[in-house]
Amino acid sequence: MTIKIGILGYGNLGRGAESAIAQNEDMELVGVFTRRDPSTLTIATQGVPVRSANDLLEGEKLDIDVLVICGGSATDLPEMTPKYAARYNVIDSFDTHARVPEHFANVDKAAGNNGNVALISAGWDPGLFSLNRLFGNCFIPQGKGYTFWGPGVSQGHSDATRRIDGVLDARQYTLPVEKALDEVRSGSNPELTTRQKHTREVFVVAAEGADRDEITKQIVTMPNYFDEYDTTVHFISQEEMDRDHSGLPHGGFVLRSGAMASGATSVIEYSLKLDSNPDFTSSVQLAYARAVARLNAEGQKGCRTVFDVAPAYLSPFDGDYLRSHFL
Amino acid sequence: MTIKIGILGYGNLGRGAESAIAQNEDMELVGVFTRRDPSTLTIATQGVPVRSANDLLEGEKLDIDVLVICGGSATDLPEMTPKYAARYNVIDSFDTHARVPEHFANVDKAAGNNGNVALISAGWDPGLFSLNRLFGNCFIPQGKGYTFWGPGVSQGHSDATRRIDGVLDARQYTLPVEKALDEVRSGSNPELTTRQKHTREVFVVAAEGADRDEITKQIVTMPNYFDEYDTTVHFISQEEMDRDHSGLPHGGFVLRSGAMASGATSVIEYSLKLDSNPDFTSSVQLAYARAVARLNAEGQKGCRTVFDVAPAYLSPFDGDYLRSHFL
Ligand SMILES: NC(=O)c1ccc[n+]([C@@H]2O[C@H](COP(=O)([O-])OP(=O)(O)OC[C@H]3O[C@@H](n4cnc5c(N)ncnc54)[C@H](OP(=O)(O)O)[C@@H]3O)[C@@H](O)[C@H]2O)c1
Ligand SMILES: NC(=O)c1ccc[n+]([C@@H]2O[C@H](COP(=O)([O-])OP(=O)(O)OC[C@H]3O[C@@H](n4cnc5c(N)ncnc54)[C@H](OP(=O)(O)O)[C@@H]3O)[C@@H](O)[C@H]2O)c1
Repeated sequence: MTIKIGILGYGNLGRGAESAIAQNEDMELVGVFTRRDPSTLTIATQGVPVRSANDLLEGEKLDIDVLVICGGSATDLPEMTPKYAARYNVIDSFDTHARVPEHFANVDKAAGNNGNVALISAGWDPGLFSLNRLFGNCFIPQGKGYTFWGPGVSQGHSDATRRIDGVLDARQYTLPVEKALDEVRSGSNPELTTRQKHTREVFVVAAEGADRDEITKQIVTMPNYFDEYDTTVHFISQEEMDRDHSGLPHGGFVLRSGAMASGATSVIEYSLKLDSNPDFTSSVQLAYARAVARLNAEGQKGCRTVFDVAPAYLSPFDGDYLRSHFL
Repeated sequence: MTIKIGILGYGNLGRGAESAIAQNEDMELVGVFTRRDPSTLTIATQGVPVRSANDLLEGEKLDIDVLVICGGSATDLPEMTPKYAARYNVIDSFDTHARVPEHFANVDKAAGNNGNVALISAGWDPGLFSLNRLFGNCFIPQGKGYTFWGPGVSQGHSDATRRIDGVLDARQYTLPVEKALDEVRSGSNPELTTRQKHTREVFVVAAEGADRDEITKQIVTMPNYFDEYDTTVHFISQEEMDRDHSGLPHGGFVLRSGAMASGATSVIEYSLKLDSNPDFTSSVQLAYARAVARLNAEGQKGCRTVFDVAPAYLSPFDGDYLRSHFL
C-alpha cells in the first residue's frame, strides 16, 4: 500500500518533505498546496501539481492519506492544523511549547469530530527530544533532565538581529557550553543558569558607515533574546555570509541523570548533529505520517503526539523484520 | 490504582527490581518467588513474602498485575516466560538476540491464548538500544547504524575466563574504541571490523605458582570470546579485585548517520553510562511493567516488545501532564 502524501506550505519544511519522499518507498507525493498563487511556485518533483490550499477545503475531498502541514508555528499552525484536520489526517511540527495544550485541544476536537488522526509537534524539538525527556523521566525516576541546543542556527534570533538599524544581514548561532555539558555527563546533576548552559554568536553584515559598537550593544542587551546570554558579535562581508553561513545546521543534547534506588548513578544522553534542521525535521515528519496513516486505518481518530505512537508504526518494516533486525 | 508486582527469580535483576519499586510510587511489591528453597532467601523489603515459584502455577491465581521474570536468558527464560505468561501478565529481559523470533512465538501463544500481555526483551540491550536502532532506521532511512558496548563488565566473558586453569577470579571489561566512535560521529559511515570497534581488558587473580603467560595466551586466543579482539590481561590480587572490580558497570552507544535526500548529513547518537547494569535494567523493566498492566487493562493480549509500546504508557503521568512538561 502506498501512502499518499500532500504537502501544505512550501517553505523549508515543505521542500524538505518533498525531497524526503524519495527516501521512503512506501510514500507518494500527490500534491503541493500553497496559500500563495500556485503559478508562482516551481517545485522539484516532476509531474506533481502545485495547487491552491483552498482546493483542500472546497469541493470534493482529495485522495490524500496524510497532509503534512508545513506552515510556521507562530501564526500559521494554530489556525491551519485544526482547519485541515477536520477534513484530512494531518501532521504538523508545531513548536511553541507553551501553547501546546491549547493547540492539542483545538486539533483534537476538529480531528476527533471528523474521524481523522492528527499528530502535532513532530520533529526533533518538539519531537525526538520530547521522547527522550519522557523516557529519561520514566527510566531514571529520581533524576534531573537537561536539554542543550546547538551548535545551530536559530532563525528567530537571526530575524530579531536583522531588524536592528544598520544591519543588512545576520545569522545567529546557539552554542551549548562544553563545560556545562561535561558537568552533566559526570552525573553530578548541577544547577545551571541560562548563561551557564548556552552562548550565542552572531554574524552581522553592517551597512556602510553604520555604528558597529551601537549594533553590538543593541544585540547583546536585547531583552528575551540576548540579555541573559554571553553573546559574541562578528562583523563580516555579505560574501562571507553567503559563503559560510547559508546552511541551517542545528542539533543538541538531551540528558537525564540520577541515582537508582541502590545509589548507582545512570546517565542517558541523546544527541543530534544535523547539517540541515529542516531536512531532518521533514524526515521525522514523514515517519510519523506513516504512523498517522496506519492509526487511522485501524479506526483511530483525534489528536496524538509522539508520546502516543508505538515505535513500530514508524517503520515500513513488519514486526518479524523489526524483531529480527533491530531488537 | 496501584500496580501489584511479583518478582520471579532473585538474582541481580530480581534485587534491582525490588529496590526500584521504591522509586515508582504507583507500584507495590506483593511477593518474591524463587525456584530455590524460599527459606534460604532474605530479601530487602520488610513484610513481603518470599514464596516458591510453584505457588504461581499451582492452586488459585495470585493477585499480581505483572510478574517480572528475572531468570537468566540462556536457559531459564525460554522455558519460564511462556510458562508463566499462560497465567499472568509478564515481562522479561531476554537477551539472546538470535533466539528472539522463537521466544516471541512461544510467548505470544501462551499469553494470547490466556488473555495476558507479555513483554519480552525489556532492558537496555535489547531494549532502549533496540528502540534507537529502529528510530535511526526510520528517521535516517538511507544511512548506517552502529552499536558500541562499554565501557562495562561482560559477565559471560568473565565467566569464560574463570574456567581457565589457574584462574581464581576474573573480570572482563569491554571497551569501545574511541577512534572508531569518533569516525562514526563524523558522519563518514566507516566500515569497521570487530577488532576496530572494541577492545577487551581482563583482570585476573591467578593461583599461586600458576603460569601467567599460559593463562594470558589461553585468554587472548579463546575462540568466539577473545580471538577477534585486541585483549589486554592484568594480573591483580584478590584484594584489588574486591576493592576495584566488584561493581557491574556497563553502557554503550547507538549511532545512526546518513545523508538526507538533499545530501545534508544527520547523526543521531544515544548513549548510556551505567554504574550498575542490573539496577538500570530493572528500572527500565518496571516502566515497561507499567505499560503491560495498562495494555492488559485495555483488553490487549499476546506478546509485545518495546517496539509495540507507545511511550506514554511507560509514564505514571497523564497525557496533559506529559504534553505540558516534556513535549
Ligand atoms: N519540531 C521541530 O523540531 C521543528 C524543527 C524545525 C522547524 N519547526 C517549525 O516548523 C515551522 C516551519 O518551518 P520552515 O523553516 O518551513 O518555515 P518557512 O520556511 O518560513 O515556511 C513557512 C511557510 O511560509 C510560507 N511562505 C510564504 N512565503 C514564502 C516564501 N517566499 N518562501 C517560502 N515559504 C513562504 C509557506 O507557506 P505557503 O506555501 O502556503 O505560502 C511556508 O509553509 C517553523 O515555524 C518551526 O516552528 C519545528
Ligand atoms: N536486556 C538487557 O538489557 C539485560 C541487561 C542485563 C541482564 N539481562 C538478562 O537478564 C538475565 C538475568 O540477569 P541477572 O544478572 O539477574 O542474572 P543472575 O544474577 O545470574 O540471576 C539469574 C537467576 O539465577 C537464580 N539463582 C540461582 N542461584 C542463585 C544465587 N545464589 N544468587 C542469585 N541468583 C541465583 C535466580 O533465580 P531463583 O531465585 O529462582 O533461583 C535468578 O533469577 C541475564 O541472563 C541477562 O541475559 C538483560
